[in-house]
Amino acid sequence: MAAMHTPTDADGPDLRHHGDAEVRGSGLTDLAVNVRAGTPPDWLKARIAASLDSLAAYPDGRTARAAVAKRHGLPPERVLLTAGAAEAFVLLARALKPRNAVVVHPQFTEPEAALRDAGHRVGRVLLREEDGFRLDPAAIPEDADLVVIGNPTNPTSVLHPTTVITQLARPGRALVVDEAFMDAVPGEREALAGRTDVPGLVVLRSLTKTWGLAGLRVGYVLADPETIGTLERAQPLWPVSSPALAAAEACCEPTALAEAEQAAQRIAADRAHLVAGLTAFDEVRHVVGPAEGPFVLVRIPDADRVRERLRELGFAARRGDTFPGLGPDWLRLAVRDRATTDAFLLALGEALQG
Amino acid sequence: MAAMHTPTDADGPDLRHHGDAEVRGSGLTDLAVNVRAGTPPDWLKARIAASLDSLAAYPDGRTARAAVAKRHGLPPERVLLTAGAAEAFVLLARALKPRNAVVVHPQFTEPEAALRDAGHRVGRVLLREEDGFRLDPAAIPEDADLVVIGNPTNPTSVLHPTTVITQLARPGRALVVDEAFMDAVPGEREALAGRTDVPGLVVLRSLTKTWGLAGLRVGYVLADPETIGTLERAQPLWPVSSPALAAAEACCEPTALAEAEQAAQRIAADRAHLVAGLTAFDEVRHVVGPAEGPFVLVRIPDADRVRERLRELGFAARRGDTFPGLGPDWLRLAVRDRATTDAFLLALGEALQG
Repeated sequence: MAAMHTPTDADGPDLRHHGDAEVRGSGLTDLAVNVRAGTPPDWLKARIAASLDSLAAYPDGRTARAAVAKRHGLPPERVLLTAGAAEAFVLLARALKPRNAVVVHPQFTEPEAALRDAGHRVGRVLLREEDGFRLDPAAIPEDADLVVIGNPTNPTSVLHPTTVITQLARPGRALVVDEAFMDAVPGEREALAGRTDVPGLVVLRSLTKTWGLAGLRVGYVLADPETIGTLERAQPLWPVSSPALAAAEACCEPTALAEAEQAAQRIAADRAHLVAGLTAFDEVRHVVGPAEGPFVLVRIPDADRVRERLRELGFAARRGDTFPGLGPDWLRLAVRDRATTDAFLLALGEALQG
Repeated sequence: MAAMHTPTDADGPDLRHHGDAEVRGSGLTDLAVNVRAGTPPDWLKARIAASLDSLAAYPDGRTARAAVAKRHGLPPERVLLTAGAAEAFVLLARALKPRNAVVVHPQFTEPEAALRDAGHRVGRVLLREEDGFRLDPAAIPEDADLVVIGNPTNPTSVLHPTTVITQLARPGRALVVDEAFMDAVPGEREALAGRTDVPGLVVLRSLTKTWGLAGLRVGYVLADPETIGTLERAQPLWPVSSPALAAAEACCEPTALAEAEQAAQRIAADRAHLVAGLTAFDEVRHVVGPAEGPFVLVRIPDADRVRERLRELGFAARRGDTFPGLGPDWLRLAVRDRATTDAFLLALGEALQG
């Protein structure tokens, strides 16, 4: 297994392209954005709405922080609530001052974009299709003092074993694991959130995808107290809104965790249905697997034309060519319910015919 | 008129102390936080609640940006929405890279705190009680490349004339005017928001105080397109939540602006009542005036003891000693309705007796 390591200052793909741009205002059936359909649930919306009564007061994050800490069995000083994972990436880039940052690609592009915006050079380790986009710890440069990896990885949907990821831990290295989609994995298998025995571990979590809170901006960081303190000092005052804090607290309750687990199991079943349908097409050359996230990465020759045709047929798929390490032959597809998937597969069959 | 200029790296007062810490969970009648009572109004709460239906989508700030631009007669490229003014201070500190930043005190302490957190040395110009805390443009060092001033100023409630503030404009200097409380001034007299003829002008606005949205985190910056672009690139992705964007849009509508104007006129009347009551006490040595914001700054010997006594009597006042340039003899009092003010004045009379 060999992965390529390329230090770059800038590069081709538009790192600031995101799936929402492919859907916004289009009226298309959305397979481009990885937010669970039918979210937020009514009970959660009611909890958020109830928080509007206290909008005149400045946000007080202590209760939500304690709730998140308890949910992961950690003390509050190992938790930092952020205005979404996007803020966390900016805080990491600005506060940690890495000299040799490395991002494992293909993955969500914001960590690299935030590092570059903060003036850092960013090295890339590109995982390869022929390796199933699996991580080879030996591919990470020994002198990397900040390593970013997603688990499960967006867009490959690969779930790396914790035993492999933890091999990347080094004294003096921040090991940033973006677990934004981990709550969509049944049992949160391979989660590092809650671990305190991995030196330099920084885990990022999002409430956006499972709970449909993309518009609310809420996520959190789990790390050693010193790192949390450093990140916290780089935050603006009152960084997370009261409605977002109310949501974070609510999503940590046992009933919410049980609902997320049920959703994860449903996603697994729905994904199996999608994968089976995709595999049936000769034109679909590769369905990356085993897929463990709420999305699937596929290689289809001339994918950009297929994607445009799908749009004409009413479906938005996520282009793959803006992810470093992928190219014009890739599409990312969100897992949806069987009926939506069946309709999509029909459209795909038509799109593949030209 | 002489004002003192002191370059400092660190200083005595806790710049991170804010009024909310004096109220939170206390059950006290709040004269410490400058948020308009009875806010947000029901119509605004309903608008924000309606936005919860689209939480699953990532925020799209374009409509709100256009609404703010229109409200100030500016093109959208001169507008940046932020997660409260607090985020704007951090963006300014991080993105503008001043070499000689100067903050005009006493004023809201976050701009200086954000500048220091970003690693800048910060010079202070201290306006003086004997000058009525009025600005002397000659006191600003000629080589300052970033000057921050509040108008009307928190905590002095002094409204500086635009003709005086604009004398601070220089080529190569960012002139940051924090107008967080300007919408509480009838007619927004002395507003610089909307002006495009002042070189380097950066105006900050908040929706927090007039609209009771402290918990929502929303404000905006008005500046030349180049500065806006620089600040925007320093923001995280999706920096302002969908509910906050909905609120910003709603608060720019003509009916909202009319309501704010009415509120400003009521505040002026309520403030006159408070000032008259305060002036009647011999122990109140100075009511800084003319007060033009929704708060009043007073000098009372042994103010800290009076403040503690007021707490026992059920009222929270804002300590003045954390504002550079003030000291232990100062309190800041929010303007409230006549009944609340009357009750407060009774308590104050008792507190002054010991």
